[in-house]
Amino acid sequence: MENKKDHSHVHGHTHKHRKSVINRLARIEGHIRSVKQMALDERDCPEILLQIAAIRKALDNTAKLVLTDHMETCLVDAVHEGNEDEVLKDIKKALHNFIR
Amino acid sequence: MENKKDHSHVHGHTHKHRKSVINRLARIEGHIRSVKQMALDERDCPEILLQIAAIRKALDNTAKLVLTDHMETCLVDAVHEGNEDEVLKDIKKALHNFIR
Repeated sequence: MENKKDHSHVHGHTHKHRKSVINRLARIEGHIRSVKQMALDERDCPEILLQIAAIRKALDNTAKLVLTDHMETCLVDAVHEGNEDEVLKDIKKALHNFIR
Repeated sequence: MENKKDHSHVHGHTHKHRKSVINRLARIEGHIRSVKQMALDERDCPEILLQIAAIRKALDNTAKLVLTDHMETCLVDAVHEGNEDEVLKDIKKALHNFIR
């Protein structure tokens, strides 16, 4: 976990939604584990597909929250410091990954 | 886990890709756990977003594999038995959930 990438934008602030992000990821982890168990139990494909779709939605909502943090906290701070270019680049990349 | 839904289509066959589906879900579970740890470690938003996007992709690929199973095994069997309507309905629902 110590392969921190070379980011010019280093976080010195706390994120408003970080606690909620952690809780959501913990719930998603448990959800994935239960779907794995469904697959092990030879449950029907449509039941598994429905659960995977639900996890995907939960994951997207978590990404939205991280993106919100990145805008509300990181971007606002960066603009105040006059170096918003890097943060804007990150946000554009995230939008590209999540909106198709 | 014992709330099996009322499905007219009950699986009496084995799924060709089920083992791969289970392995993928196990990997995704570990991946989610490591992203949760990243959030706990106050890692940068863009790093977390990138990992969430990767998990989303892995999840979609797993869904494709379950859908492939559902077509190659369940649908083919159902057509042979002359009762493909339920399986086709399931597939349409899955397509609706995964392709927007």
